[in-house]
Amino acid sequence: MIKSLVTGGAGFIGCHVVNHLIKMGHEVVVLDDLSGGSKNNINSQAIFINGSVEDEELVKDIFNTHKFTYVYHLAAYAAEGLSHYVRMHNYRSNLMGSASLINESINHDVKCFVFTSSIAVYGTNTLPMTESAVPQPGDPYGISKYAIELDLKAAYEMFGLNYVIFRPHNVYGEFQNIGDRYRNVIGIFMNQILNDRPLTIFGDGKQSRAFSYIDDVAPHIANAVNVPEAQNQIFNIGSDKVISINALAEIVIEVMGAESSIEYLEARNEVVHAYSDHTKLKHVFQIKDESEASLRKGLDRMAVWVKEQGAKETKIYTDLEISKKISSHWMRH
Amino acid sequence: MIKSLVTGGAGFIGCHVVNHLIKMGHEVVVLDDLSGGSKNNINSQAIFINGSVEDEELVKDIFNTHKFTYVYHLAAYAAEGLSHYVRMHNYRSNLMGSASLINESINHDVKCFVFTSSIAVYGTNTLPMTESAVPQPGDPYGISKYAIELDLKAAYEMFGLNYVIFRPHNVYGEFQNIGDRYRNVIGIFMNQILNDRPLTIFGDGKQSRAFSYIDDVAPHIANAVNVPEAQNQIFNIGSDKVISINALAEIVIEVMGAESSIEYLEARNEVVHAYSDHTKLKHVFQIKDESEASLRKGLDRMAVWVKEQGAKETKIYTDLEISKKISSHWMRH
Repeated sequence: MIKSLVTGGAGFIGCHVVNHLIKMGHEVVVLDDLSGGSKNNINSQAIFINGSVEDEELVKDIFNTHKFTYVYHLAAYAAEGLSHYVRMHNYRSNLMGSASLINESINHDVKCFVFTSSIAVYGTNTLPMTESAVPQPGDPYGISKYAIELDLKAAYEMFGLNYVIFRPHNVYGEFQNIGDRYRNVIGIFMNQILNDRPLTIFGDGKQSRAFSYIDDVAPHIANAVNVPEAQNQIFNIGSDKVISINALAEIVIEVMGAESSIEYLEARNEVVHAYSDHTKLKHVFQIKDESEASLRKGLDRMAVWVKEQGAKETKIYTDLEISKKISSHWMRH
Repeated sequence: MIKSLVTGGAGFIGCHVVNHLIKMGHEVVVLDDLSGGSKNNINSQAIFINGSVEDEELVKDIFNTHKFTYVYHLAAYAAEGLSHYVRMHNYRSNLMGSASLINESINHDVKCFVFTSSIAVYGTNTLPMTESAVPQPGDPYGISKYAIELDLKAAYEMFGLNYVIFRPHNVYGEFQNIGDRYRNVIGIFMNQILNDRPLTIFGDGKQSRAFSYIDDVAPHIANAVNVPEAQNQIFNIGSDKVISINALAEIVIEVMGAESSIEYLEARNEVVHAYSDHTKLKHVFQIKDESEASLRKGLDRMAVWVKEQGAKETKIYTDLEISKKISSHWMRH
């Protein structure tokens, strides 16, 4: 039987990947510290280990106990904007944790290491961003993801560890954590609506992104190990449809059946336009052009689920390493 | 009075930078864990703190105690070839330690952060390597250095922390640690000669490098904070004179007055040709074309010092994280 480790398997993208792997017949071990994910998200057929990828000894133990064919490494603290203020936390979680998994994957002859990087590696770049563009990440989150991409390439060239790297962007859908005020604008908007608060937008809202429905992302990540031409390649993954944050806010208000207002906050230092090209993914993974869901349809589905779950409290991140220039919105109760 | 922190100030390049800073009238605090450096190298006018950049609390304490105008961050474990086998140690030492210093430099309004990156960021690249080439580091050491370059750029853009980044290569000279079998081929050769052992070369010895005498490197690093056009720029630094490892071995044997033989070891996975262009440095730092010393002259000076010091024992690195494919030479007593 094929045994796969999924880190972050209690998280949003991770739990969907776990479900696909179990359908594919894999035995799945989930490693998750529940910092962003939830125990309820984990498929009951998976073995759950409550712990962090940052725990080197635990990671070694897990690899010694289980004989993994594949590793799907999705665990991350993906708060890009916040990462400027929590450098050490970011690198510890996103880089050291990854390096430890890469070490053990080399030591235990894992056949393929599937890694979710991020569109954040591109930084401000030529649009649409293609895999051949030179990454120029502009924040510690994107830098940590890019460093791990390079580390995987080195591990492949030195030790033959195969990898598939995905650079997803703005993924949304059911089982997303909408209670984190530092990431995932759709979840933030929906939670603000459920809490009867105005939707908050940094800057003028003319920033643009392409929002990707989870069912257009998770199945391909799960299936990557079975696509020979995908080995040791990097793929953008997600939607082609670009939309401004202002337009997104309108649609979210609509699908939630709300009448919220919008509060514009001071612009933050962020990439203004970020969307990517998916020609390579579609070609190698033989994906037809129609996506699983239009933004409207995907948001409808997510809204149904979010309303069932109800509003979430959002915690304030209290362990800031730098507090200069931080948005007061991020710190207010 | 200007107060500067020099990390790695007991190490080879660091101790020379400290001497220059003291000549320039800076008050200098040295932070060094003596893992590679030596207490004897430290200028007696400097304040010495025995500790590691990896110790976050210590780093915070030091910044709270001293009001630094400048930070010179030279501490690193620069064993490029070994870094494949000690990923975690490499990232902990070279990346986390740096990120912690960057955090505190932002928090304490340091005026300029001078960082010694490495030619290793280029990986296998177009020759001679220029600062405009796209870095493609091929080992964890080069990746960690590149990640910190990117982090400094992000810190500058987000918080206004000025930086000057140097990418030195193959620096040699007095006060170099010749007792580390994992780095610095000139030191390794000289120590092998003093120990009456054959000189060891990985592969056919046709690899090429440009060896840089310390006096062509350290003064410019020290002076970087005083060069306005150098702020927030990256500079190659070192010699233009390219030489093969075979040819180097001959000269080293000559200057040491030895009659050693050469033992060729199995080739390792390394960049075959690595040398860089220094037009930008010479222009901005107004350096005349004649270098401080020809390779021959520099080696002569180093040989005198090395012979005074005598042979060193070389320790075997026992905490390997991966032992696959490691050169048996690196592990033999």
